[in-house]
Amino acid sequence: MKTYLECIPCFFKQGIESAKILGATKDQQKQIVDEIAKTIPCFPLDSSPPEMGKIVHDIIKKVLKADDPYKQLKQESNQIALSIYKKLKQKVINSEDKLLTGLHLSIAGNIIDYGANHNVHPEREVLKILDSKNTILNKRHFHYLAFKKRLEKADLILFIGDNAGEIVFDKILAEEIKNLYPAKKLVYAVRETPIINDITTEDALFVGMDETAQIISSGSDIPGTLLSRCNDEFLSLFHRADIIISKGQGNFETLADKNLSVPLFFLLTVKCPVVGDKLNAKIGDFILKPL
Amino acid sequence: MKTYLECIPCFFKQGIESAKILGATKDQQKQIVDEIAKTIPCFPLDSSPPEMGKIVHDIIKKVLKADDPYKQLKQESNQIALSIYKKLKQKVINSEDKLLTGLHLSIAGNIIDYGANHNVHPEREVLKILDSKNTILNKRHFHYLAFKKRLEKADLILFIGDNAGEIVFDKILAEEIKNLYPAKKLVYAVRETPIINDITTEDALFVGMDETAQIISSGSDIPGTLLSRCNDEFLSLFHRADIIISKGQGNFETLADKNLSVPLFFLLTVKCPVVGDKLNAKIGDFILKPL
Repeated sequence: MKTYLECIPCFFKQGIESAKILGATKDQQKQIVDEIAKTIPCFPLDSSPPEMGKIVHDIIKKVLKADDPYKQLKQESNQIALSIYKKLKQKVINSEDKLLTGLHLSIAGNIIDYGANHNVHPEREVLKILDSKNTILNKRHFHYLAFKKRLEKADLILFIGDNAGEIVFDKILAEEIKNLYPAKKLVYAVRETPIINDITTEDALFVGMDETAQIISSGSDIPGTLLSRCNDEFLSLFHRADIIISKGQGNFETLADKNLSVPLFFLLTVKCPVVGDKLNAKIGDFILKPL
Repeated sequence: MKTYLECIPCFFKQGIESAKILGATKDQQKQIVDEIAKTIPCFPLDSSPPEMGKIVHDIIKKVLKADDPYKQLKQESNQIALSIYKKLKQKVINSEDKLLTGLHLSIAGNIIDYGANHNVHPEREVLKILDSKNTILNKRHFHYLAFKKRLEKADLILFIGDNAGEIVFDKILAEEIKNLYPAKKLVYAVRETPIINDITTEDALFVGMDETAQIISSGSDIPGTLLSRCNDEFLSLFHRADIIISKGQGNFETLADKNLSVPLFFLLTVKCPVVGDKLNAKIGDFILKPL
């Protein structure tokens, strides 16, 4: 997905909100904004928004002199999400269609994102959302049968993760897939280096995702999956997998519109109007959609 | 009022939305965005947002090679507002407190603004708002008695206008003031040169405001009233007036926090969260507040 002009105010908004969350002084916040402004004329609009996201966050890292400014927030997200793991698990156990519930939970976990919005530590909010009778799964956006059919036939499943905290919700889905299909191979891909609150190997190990899936780094250093920046191991799996589960907006923005012909399903909540327009959906909608 | 970092994404948003409304091509829109980005590092945050508004719109004028790109939109706004003039007048005539209704209408007309939001030609929307029982005048924001008391004692009234279309609603208020107090002198101040859809002498004459008030230019070339950019005639009136009515967010942003001690009342609808925070009000609130 290319960058729309409407994304540009949002880059500034994210930069400012991130700077504030990370405790930047007023002078540092202004410095960050000025540096972002200087990059705008050079940023090609046919690039994806997550590529600008990397530029914005590299600026933040440089100004704050921190390699992983979200480290503590990620740890807290993971811990809070783990604290409700048993409740999430119980939801699956108590449900009629456990795979559907697992998908529902994994997508709901995508609400946790400091990239597109800044509801700090919303993990507990997810339970309220799940209990809300308003979460209707619109068949226009939620292609469950197609997903299930593809999953049943798959031997190799590639699951591309997104954010800290959310990974615990992914774990619930991954465990359910392994319960249903113990023989299938499940690989969970994380980012190569810290970027915003996206997951790295450290997060995956911390929440115990390695108990359910093989953990690999995609090689990506941006808050998305740009294939030209991924490593060979990931690319090989990407092209061999019988089903690919892609979580979140960043992965959607970098994998959509690329003329790929892989069996990929996007799982995300819509968090911005540009992505909403692209998917013909509105903010808050739950998406399970094939490429 | 200084510029907050949160205003910066909004400058881009306004620039893009304005460019679209004015029919800029995609390349022109990108050029406008790039030019705005180049000005950000040089823009002092202790300046007011309308000063940046002028910079943004000068860029738009330059790229579109147009001195008054909003000319047609202003004409349409004035014409549409005039088409409901009689209905507005009837509302005043039918009301118990005609001055209060006049104030209410004048503030409601402030919804019409391409600076802060882009509800194109919302003049007819104003009638719906006025009819809505939800428009509650919150005493915290609506200092009617103080205004009335000051008005009663005034000989010279300076009314600083804001937008095209809205000026017709101001005319309703101005006419009511003259009905109540025929001997008082009323001066209505407009912008010196076209800026966004702010009113100039041409608009004031077109809607017949000169039948009720003396029309002067403040000398301002920005979408606000920065006293350092105003002419001597305006400044003399500003410092001599017994009551000053200041319409809209732009005039508020340039006249608040200036340690002025003049008998000024701000009349506006809150259209952005930064101004809302400043006034301890929310978007959509009707404000009648002394300096």
